[in-house]
Amino acid sequence: MDEIRNAIRLVPDFPKQGILFKDITPLLQNEKIGKLIIKEFADRLKGKRIDAIAGIESRGFLFGYALALEMGLPFIPIRKSGKLPWKTVGVDYALEYGTARIEMHQDAVTSGMHVMVHDDLLATGGTAAAAAKLIQGQGGVVSCFSFVVELSFLKGRDALTQYSGDIISLVND
Amino acid sequence: MDEIRNAIRLVPDFPKQGILFKDITPLLQNEKIGKLIIKEFADRLKGKRIDAIAGIESRGFLFGYALALEMGLPFIPIRKSGKLPWKTVGVDYALEYGTARIEMHQDAVTSGMHVMVHDDLLATGGTAAAAAKLIQGQGGVVSCFSFVVELSFLKGRDALTQYSGDIISLVND
Repeated sequence: MDEIRNAIRLVPDFPKQGILFKDITPLLQNEKIGKLIIKEFADRLKGKRIDAIAGIESRGFLFGYALALEMGLPFIPIRKSGKLPWKTVGVDYALEYGTARIEMHQDAVTSGMHVMVHDDLLATGGTAAAAAKLIQGQGGVVSCFSFVVELSFLKGRDALTQYSGDIISLVND
Repeated sequence: MDEIRNAIRLVPDFPKQGILFKDITPLLQNEKIGKLIIKEFADRLKGKRIDAIAGIESRGFLFGYALALEMGLPFIPIRKSGKLPWKTVGVDYALEYGTARIEMHQDAVTSGMHVMVHDDLLATGGTAAAAAKLIQGQGGVVSCFSFVVELSFLKGRDALTQYSGDIISLVND
């Protein structure tokens, strides 16, 4: 996955001093790398039961929805509080300072549905864990997590293993 | 395009009293309709010069990026203020109450590049016009706008014709 890793732009001090941010916008500008990411996810997910892909707003919408179309699966948008128009269910979770809330529509997940949670980046795992909790709360099964980039020094996997043992990341730094 | 129109969920009084909101989440849950939308856009765009697709956060990321991959084009994320990590250019624009700002990376558009602006919905056209201004400001040419849904009673086209005569919408209500 060196082709993907090498295309990521490193931005110092974003969103704050001392953080070296991994910018995925160059991956989006190169359609060959975009197709490689989708193909790689599809290959690694072969044989797993996935009934739907849940993508986390906003960057999880990019590869998440393209992958859902590639795999012929329904896509579930998980959004920030107040963004979804119909009846929602939500989960509050802790951030470094304060809390955040994510929501999905009540009819997005049905009982027994196997759902993959997707985001572009796995950092501390807080948002992905909240998404998993949301899905389980509606009777769904989190069959897998997938990320383009994993910042393994932040140990985000530790926050997710209680939901699923299958955690896929294409670039692990 | 009745298949697309019929799948849209109408939600009364969102985001405020008196608005009948068109909810596209059922389109995302049905992969056949998703593929139909991508195919329909690709068909209608045949023969037009498009060097890149710019999608507006968040819902413009969904069909926008999938279409970019389908057409083999670079994708440019246009985001809300403060979200992009690298050097940005931005445009402020008026909302019903107050103002908003959208941004893109400085290296996203190069001089003479033909860019299609994409979003899921054309309402008053304020955000799409701001995106067009942003692209032109970097020397780009807005060759086309595309939307899944157009609320024609809001006359959003009037805000866009100064940028491009090509405005495509799949469902016009």
